[in-house]
Amino acid sequence: MGLLAEVTRGQRVESQHFGRAVIVDASGKVVWSCGDYEASIYPRSTVKALLGLELVESGAAARLQLSDAELALTCASHNGEAEHAATAQRLLSRVGLDVGALECGTHWPTYEPAARQLAGAGEQACPLHNNCSGKHAGLICLSCDAGIATQGYIDPQHAIQKRVTQVLAEVTGAEHREDRRGTDGCSMPTYAIPLHSLAHGFARFGSGIGLSADRARAAQTLREAVAKQPFMVAGTGRYDTALMKEIGLGAFIKMGAEGVMVAALPDEGLGIAIKVDDGANRAAEVAMSALISRFGGDILRNKAAQSGILERTMCQSLRNWEGRDVGEIRAALNAGT
Amino acid sequence: MGLLAEVTRGQRVESQHFGRAVIVDASGKVVWSCGDYEASIYPRSTVKALLGLELVESGAAARLQLSDAELALTCASHNGEAEHAATAQRLLSRVGLDVGALECGTHWPTYEPAARQLAGAGEQACPLHNNCSGKHAGLICLSCDAGIATQGYIDPQHAIQKRVTQVLAEVTGAEHREDRRGTDGCSMPTYAIPLHSLAHGFARFGSGIGLSADRARAAQTLREAVAKQPFMVAGTGRYDTALMKEIGLGAFIKMGAEGVMVAALPDEGLGIAIKVDDGANRAAEVAMSALISRFGGDILRNKAAQSGILERTMCQSLRNWEGRDVGEIRAALNAGT
Repeated sequence: MGLLAEVTRGQRVESQHFGRAVIVDASGKVVWSCGDYEASIYPRSTVKALLGLELVESGAAARLQLSDAELALTCASHNGEAEHAATAQRLLSRVGLDVGALECGTHWPTYEPAARQLAGAGEQACPLHNNCSGKHAGLICLSCDAGIATQGYIDPQHAIQKRVTQVLAEVTGAEHREDRRGTDGCSMPTYAIPLHSLAHGFARFGSGIGLSADRARAAQTLREAVAKQPFMVAGTGRYDTALMKEIGLGAFIKMGAEGVMVAALPDEGLGIAIKVDDGANRAAEVAMSALISRFGGDILRNKAAQSGILERTMCQSLRNWEGRDVGEIRAALNAGT
Repeated sequence: MGLLAEVTRGQRVESQHFGRAVIVDASGKVVWSCGDYEASIYPRSTVKALLGLELVESGAAARLQLSDAELALTCASHNGEAEHAATAQRLLSRVGLDVGALECGTHWPTYEPAARQLAGAGEQACPLHNNCSGKHAGLICLSCDAGIATQGYIDPQHAIQKRVTQVLAEVTGAEHREDRRGTDGCSMPTYAIPLHSLAHGFARFGSGIGLSADRARAAQTLREAVAKQPFMVAGTGRYDTALMKEIGLGAFIKMGAEGVMVAALPDEGLGIAIKVDDGANRAAEVAMSALISRFGGDILRNKAAQSGILERTMCQSLRNWEGRDVGEIRAALNAGT
């Protein structure tokens, strides 16, 4: 367990976040680490892009003529803004279905202005606003394309779940065991795997090294779609969207619930995985920016420097309701391997 | 640093929260502890009731004929529900002022259904919805009653701030030093003090022991107001409200930002203070219920047992968007002194 981030107020540290982080190359070699990276963690939403690989690799995405925005949404934990919900609806329309096919459950948009906008218009939230609706719609598309009935697609025993879980296991190199299975917020299974396996999966996802030619191409298609449509992956005011908007194809970044975050640095052939032990995403963000700044190559850093996005996100001002600076949250990484 | 709480998913611990907790009697003796209780922490909103003492002790509350609901709101970090905003408005009306006097800043109600209700009615948030509006309105009342101009009442140098800070120092027995001052979310100062001093302050607040007769009576008045109007202190779905609704005068409980929580157990003469090092309030809640269950006397426990409130809150089910049980958050207190 290492120190990942500190939250200050006035001249004092008010809170601290500990956790683990690891950087792995495409061969699986650990390049840098902090804390126990062999222990298993639930990857939660960080693996959505890996779950999307089969949709592209199988040819389903091309047959269904999915747009970049639609592909990006299959990798998303989105804000539930109007464009996210509309894009999820379009994905379902590709296979002649609608919101009724989604088994993710309903919650109001996590982006509060979007929730208030919806309420202000006298509307109600529906499963399209669930932050996972794109991933679910993607699985439904894959299922329909394969001629498999979609009902119960969230069940670990459903044919489509078995297929994408197999891909997860291959790309991360980690067993996806039943006795390490939990249920995610959106009712899909999440399998605990070692943190370094998660990083390894994203080193492969970014570089294509160690993947079949078809899968490497599928990964590239997804990364390109997300780089073109970073808004779809998260939304207004969100970390992943903000970074990918500036860095483009230089980094693929994805957050997950309970303080998990991954990145792929394609040009460097590296994968990064972070787990904040207390589950706080705010700490994963500042730590990730510090690691990308340190391990990204010249091209990435030059690109990021234009907007100052990495500096701005590795040490973030905390402002109160009157807009006063009251402290900051900053990366505080311990020395690693 | 001790383990305070664990969050599980499936069969595994997904996240952990470490921190410090201490139980002190009215003489200042540490009865139980976990982690470093001498280190200073920002009490944040936990001390609102102590800030309210002067309003009662000075006679201002009686002269202004403040109701129980209004007094309870001066101790609140409320949800911004319609009743909270209306009560804050009534407090200001007592001294002939309105929302324009508040210097706490504006945020939308933290209780999302209330925010959506407001938006649905085509209204906007205002400082009355700020979770601290009751504390601010209370200070404005105190200031007006004393014939002091309210403008700038949030400034550490304002006469009314100096007065309530002096009370804080006396009740907690801790120096309130300028070099340990931070600014809170609502722009008021917050002074870092040792965790055991915070607990000591609430042992006195609950029992009256060690306070002047007038101050002890003021503390009792505030505790009674809160016990009668627990909704005003927080609101729908909130921990402090839920517990005090069941336990009544048996415990005074108050959360603060960044994982700080306090309780007074009047019948036992004990004060409890918790600081979760990573700032997560969810951990403070389960830990507090476990401590109240362990250190509360028979009367308190019998009262709590009727509704099962302590058991239900020290180990809380985590349900996903479809209402499935996916894990739990539970107290996991290390052995103490």
